[in-house]
Amino acid sequence: MSTHHAMAALELIGIFVFAISGALTAIQKGFDAVGILILAEVTALGGGVVRDVIIGDTPPAAFRDVWLLLVPVAAATVAFFAHPVVERLTFAVLLFDAAGLGLFCVTGTLKALDHGLGPVQSAVLGVTTAVGGGLLRDVIARQTPALVKVDTDLYSIPAMLGAATVTVAHRLDLPMSVAAPAAAVAVFAFRVIAMVRHWTAPQAWTRRRAGEASG
Amino acid sequence: MSTHHAMAALELIGIFVFAISGALTAIQKGFDAVGILILAEVTALGGGVVRDVIIGDTPPAAFRDVWLLLVPVAAATVAFFAHPVVERLTFAVLLFDAAGLGLFCVTGTLKALDHGLGPVQSAVLGVTTAVGGGLLRDVIARQTPALVKVDTDLYSIPAMLGAATVTVAHRLDLPMSVAAPAAAVAVFAFRVIAMVRHWTAPQAWTRRRAGEASG
Amino acid sequence: MSTHHAMAALELIGIFVFAISGALTAIQKGFDAVGILILAEVTALGGGVVRDVIIGDTPPAAFRDVWLLLVPVAAATVAFFAHPVVERLTFAVLLFDAAGLGLFCVTGTLKALDHGLGPVQSAVLGVTTAVGGGLLRDVIARQTPALVKVDTDLYSIPAMLGAATVTVAHRLDLPMSVAAPAAAVAVFAFRVIAMVRHWTAPQAWTRRRAGEASG
Repeated sequence: MSTHHAMAALELIGIFVFAISGALTAIQKGFDAVGILILAEVTALGGGVVRDVIIGDTPPAAFRDVWLLLVPVAAATVAFFAHPVVERLTFAVLLFDAAGLGLFCVTGTLKALDHGLGPVQSAVLGVTTAVGGGLLRDVIARQTPALVKVDTDLYSIPAMLGAATVTVAHRLDLPMSVAAPAAAVAVFAFRVIAMVRHWTAPQAWTRRRAGEASG
Repeated sequence: MSTHHAMAALELIGIFVFAISGALTAIQKGFDAVGILILAEVTALGGGVVRDVIIGDTPPAAFRDVWLLLVPVAAATVAFFAHPVVERLTFAVLLFDAAGLGLFCVTGTLKALDHGLGPVQSAVLGVTTAVGGGLLRDVIARQTPALVKVDTDLYSIPAMLGAATVTVAHRLDLPMSVAAPAAAVAVFAFRVIAMVRHWTAPQAWTRRRAGEASG
Repeated sequence: MSTHHAMAALELIGIFVFAISGALTAIQKGFDAVGILILAEVTALGGGVVRDVIIGDTPPAAFRDVWLLLVPVAAATVAFFAHPVVERLTFAVLLFDAAGLGLFCVTGTLKALDHGLGPVQSAVLGVTTAVGGGLLRDVIARQTPALVKVDTDLYSIPAMLGAATVTVAHRLDLPMSVAAPAAAVAVFAFRVIAMVRHWTAPQAWTRRRAGEASG
């Protein structure tokens, strides 16, 4: 019961922080108040909406529980008035974002497994839940998706490992009340370490070797 | 009965004008005939398709009534051959576009309410119906979405107020045969006044104050 | 039976080649390993996922048969390590891509007809199946969609004719075991000839005439 409440609270915090990242992107791009609100909503909820539409569980969760739509409004309002303060809190925002990443890849994978999808498919939808909103944010804001940039610290790889962990635990019938929080925490820790140490994913083989040779 | 027919006729006109705006964007970008057709279809129907997929009412209306697919073909053909004439009619096109905006935010909200979605969710889907196609148009045409640009006259705010009006009228059990057309007309009027007076939405707080200080 | 197996094999080949085109685009853009994988998956499966979501047949085929998700992983891996070789095989890749185009526009149209959609709607979804993934690839990679560029050889027009042929054959009750492969082969041949002869779609009327006058 308290785990359930903790998960629900964490989910709202994750949505809030994802929405903050969308709103800050909109402000950096010089978008107006409407653009700030739209980008906050799309960043926070886009991944989950795509997941639910693909599963066929419509209307998506974001259109059932009204708080999921209202939390990004609060985040956009905070960013609108206080974005210089929020921008100074970059590392705190990134920490919460890492928590959201861990949480959403786990809950997204679990939801897909619950709806009877296979393990690979569920892991893909878990990652989609965690990174889909940020991809939509970058497409609308017309910037190279952070997801694919070479100089971005690892983001989706921790999510992939977390989603894979959940599907393996599910296959082995491990108690999910332990495995799910453990996977979320592991993703969070992996992401934070990747940020601190600036771990990045490799470029294509020969490009990397060319880079090393000339480096 | 005649109200129903008038709504259906207005919907086709709205789709035609939204398609014209997509086709003109494609022509301005130098797209070929295929690009003009695709952008006309996506702009005219994209918002409603997204709404119906989210509601779970599939296939979407645009894939049931074949006229909804054929009207953008007609619009793309007109724009293809006569775009210099159409471009000179800018204000007329914008007037019809405002009518489409008012109509689609109202009908989209009503459809979501009919499918049992809550008032906030229905209003969001009403606005999505009205502005979603234009957002997809701008993403495909690789231009900053008109929706979020600071120098664009108010577009989605009239739609938001119209959608909110419909949900309040629905909650208060007001007769929708009066409330819906009234809300659509109010959105139309608000949008036209915003165009004429060049009303815009504010930028984020400190940016705006910085702008005023230096202005 | 053997036709069925041949179609299934061709579909996996088509998905592989579409995924290669996504992976090569990601490599050319300098994306990292994650970006290469994501673009391979989206390019190969995006069109079919959009078709299935619109039809309401969820989860989409790509989330039922796990091979459809794994083939793009293989393609991304090949491209990651061997892209200089693959890039030298451009014409071979384009040939397989033309085969995928012919196959997907036919199978997509048939699936929509099977689900009871009208002929025009089914043809639109057939074309969506064939070209939707490439459109998503170009949006994420932030390049002008190949689909709409004036200097691109005909791509979607062969698909449109193939989809139209299938719907006409369906309406006339022609045996689909003959008509479907014939339409796919015709699309393939049309696309290859268009590539070899550099056929392009026209720009809007007056622009084209202006171009001729100055030419």
